[in-house]
Amino acid sequence: MENDPLRIGIVGLGTVGASVVNLLHNEAGALAHRSPRPLQVVAVSARDAGRSRGLDLSNIQWMDDPVALATHPDVDVVVELVGGAEGTARAVVEAALTAGKSVITANKSLLAHHGFALAQLAEKNGATLAFEAAVAGGIPIIKALREGGAANTIEKFYGILNGTCNYILTTMKKTRADFADVLAEAQHLGYAEADPSFDIDGTDTAHKLAILSSIAFGTRVDLGAVQCEGIRSVVFEDIQMADSLGYVIKLLGFAEKRGDAVSQRVYPCLVPKNAVIAPVDDVYNAVVFFGDYVGQVMIQGRGAGGNPTASAVVADLLDLANGRVSSAFGRKTENLAIAAPVPEESHEGCFYVRLMVLDKAGVVAQIASELSKEGISIKTLTQREQKIQGAVPLVFTTHACREAVMKRVLSHLESSDFLSAKPTMLRIEY
Amino acid sequence: MENDPLRIGIVGLGTVGASVVNLLHNEAGALAHRSPRPLQVVAVSARDAGRSRGLDLSNIQWMDDPVALATHPDVDVVVELVGGAEGTARAVVEAALTAGKSVITANKSLLAHHGFALAQLAEKNGATLAFEAAVAGGIPIIKALREGGAANTIEKFYGILNGTCNYILTTMKKTRADFADVLAEAQHLGYAEADPSFDIDGTDTAHKLAILSSIAFGTRVDLGAVQCEGIRSVVFEDIQMADSLGYVIKLLGFAEKRGDAVSQRVYPCLVPKNAVIAPVDDVYNAVVFFGDYVGQVMIQGRGAGGNPTASAVVADLLDLANGRVSSAFGRKTENLAIAAPVPEESHEGCFYVRLMVLDKAGVVAQIASELSKEGISIKTLTQREQKIQGAVPLVFTTHACREAVMKRVLSHLESSDFLSAKPTMLRIEY
Repeated sequence: MENDPLRIGIVGLGTVGASVVNLLHNEAGALAHRSPRPLQVVAVSARDAGRSRGLDLSNIQWMDDPVALATHPDVDVVVELVGGAEGTARAVVEAALTAGKSVITANKSLLAHHGFALAQLAEKNGATLAFEAAVAGGIPIIKALREGGAANTIEKFYGILNGTCNYILTTMKKTRADFADVLAEAQHLGYAEADPSFDIDGTDTAHKLAILSSIAFGTRVDLGAVQCEGIRSVVFEDIQMADSLGYVIKLLGFAEKRGDAVSQRVYPCLVPKNAVIAPVDDVYNAVVFFGDYVGQVMIQGRGAGGNPTASAVVADLLDLANGRVSSAFGRKTENLAIAAPVPEESHEGCFYVRLMVLDKAGVVAQIASELSKEGISIKTLTQREQKIQGAVPLVFTTHACREAVMKRVLSHLESSDFLSAKPTMLRIEY
Repeated sequence: MENDPLRIGIVGLGTVGASVVNLLHNEAGALAHRSPRPLQVVAVSARDAGRSRGLDLSNIQWMDDPVALATHPDVDVVVELVGGAEGTARAVVEAALTAGKSVITANKSLLAHHGFALAQLAEKNGATLAFEAAVAGGIPIIKALREGGAANTIEKFYGILNGTCNYILTTMKKTRADFADVLAEAQHLGYAEADPSFDIDGTDTAHKLAILSSIAFGTRVDLGAVQCEGIRSVVFEDIQMADSLGYVIKLLGFAEKRGDAVSQRVYPCLVPKNAVIAPVDDVYNAVVFFGDYVGQVMIQGRGAGGNPTASAVVADLLDLANGRVSSAFGRKTENLAIAAPVPEESHEGCFYVRLMVLDKAGVVAQIASELSKEGISIKTLTQREQKIQGAVPLVFTTHACREAVMKRVLSHLESSDFLSAKPTMLRIEY
């Protein structure tokens, strides 16, 4: 048993699935040194048996029914690479765990929605549920939080968790282009999906944040508690203005423990150029976490793509073959607490606001007065000369204030007669 | 047995030892969720039993003889925090492993000198030898290479592995001070030892590099093969000139697989300001590695200090208590290859050279001619006006050339009559 092959069944043969098959084949010699048991793919299942994938699938059983694969007596571990919170992916993972088979998955959506229940199911059946590939692709961030940082109480973490958004924001800055143009190019290059909403609305980042929060804080995955805004509203003007003020704009996910409550937020924000995460550009991901003993740790690398994701999947397979197993979220499910969310309104921070104002006398005075009335202190204020559709951009940044108060001021201003468009408000972080 | 306490014996109660005792005590509640077995310190041994350490050592047996502790039947795992390649540290680790007890150590010197033999000893006696704390303090880089990146063939890695040197170089730049002054201040602040040679001559970096090389490439630890230069020769003038050319100066360790041979080098070098490792300042460490599937991964964090190091020691204890064990260097010792070193002369790269030249006619022409004769192409050349002890600094950078050729030119120039001091040659990397 100890040196018997670890028999692997793979469900899903898209980009990642194909990379996993290739990696296991191409690196077999090196992997043999790192595992007491040979890693052997015995069965695969995917939607289209006829499609040519350029893979050598000889000696591997093709099964049309993915759930039958998941429960097949010849399969020790099921690698789920279908994706999606429901349907085939969920059925396969539940069937495998119920049958006491371990599951390795790259499916952040499934884990964000059903992670706690699946961890319970794995525990009940003595199976391992591993998902290094589900967050930040090839970066071993789950291992770093769950094992490497396990001696610490994690206070907070934040990260760039979506390569598509980071590519779009970076490219907007480099090419001085607007969001829609860069998105179209990213779609053309295959960096963004035909339906990009999952990425650009922050949903994907929210999924990953919810998974990491559970591991970092020992709480149950709570996707519904994530406050989430995407990058659709970011225009080149903001990136340029942020640059001149000493910032870059990044889509970040933040999670923080506050007493028994957990704050989880996803939004585009201004980050000082000298911040540790500011130089992480293009499709790279990065996570920064803070432990009470270790201090600040940052890990960065490729957050997506077939090969980096396959690297993480096979790392999980090697852990399993070596008997290095962990509870899914780092502790028994009975020890995962239910955390209250932190109310959005209670947040405090500095803000960047861009108003498109009509060129009238007294406008600046009126805005300054509204801010002053609410006790918000202005840090910088810039009005540019160039007109865009009859209005000029007026940008100010603030000292720390309550987010609810800032929003109240903006809603007052919106009802005034000198704004030509809805105000843009971005948070300033770190 | 499975839920029995993991009984820990600690040898060495300096800064790190005290932090480990405190961490295990202060975080006991959180750790209980992350371990099926209670982590219980049952015995300690240190040089001076009478010294007050501000630690609660009640219910812990004090043992004057560290080797007796290492073999005591009540001890399951020995934590060695004495340091040094020989003496007590070596005796304790060898005794424990021989007795079949697992060992956790932060001792890079011991592992760099005797790592392979100790790994054999552990293997023979069915014991675990773990040492996350030995390299880069709290950063889980050993876990990242040995497990997180285990699916990859690692092609190369490099890193800032010594916090003292990074602090000195960073502070020289910030305060425009010279090496000796900053070193004295670092000693005053406790960032550098009274005898700083271990750090500033690159020895400590070489130890860590040799350990990481073994894990990354699957080769036996080979400290003797590390080419090593320290930072004593770096003067403020070089840091300033590098800055104006777009570089920072860092003490880096590099390791690269070239066929069956392994190149291991430690030296101060110029790194472009936009390189991923350039912003890693002060006492922070960072490692960048390249896997054939995962691509580039960087991990950074605190490389030293009691608490970060204790974080790594306790992470190893948690792995042990959870049964997550690995071979010391990621594979069986019989699979660790003996790698030939890459001869120093075969290296190729770009160079930064500072010559202190006497203000005579024809000097630049002579230097340019020497370089041209050897086929070395100049990239930039700067001569400053200000005289230092009768000579002016002449700095040039080169396009890629063989290191051996560059050194030959410099040795020719040294014998000329227009240099007031030995040339300074620094490599330009990344």
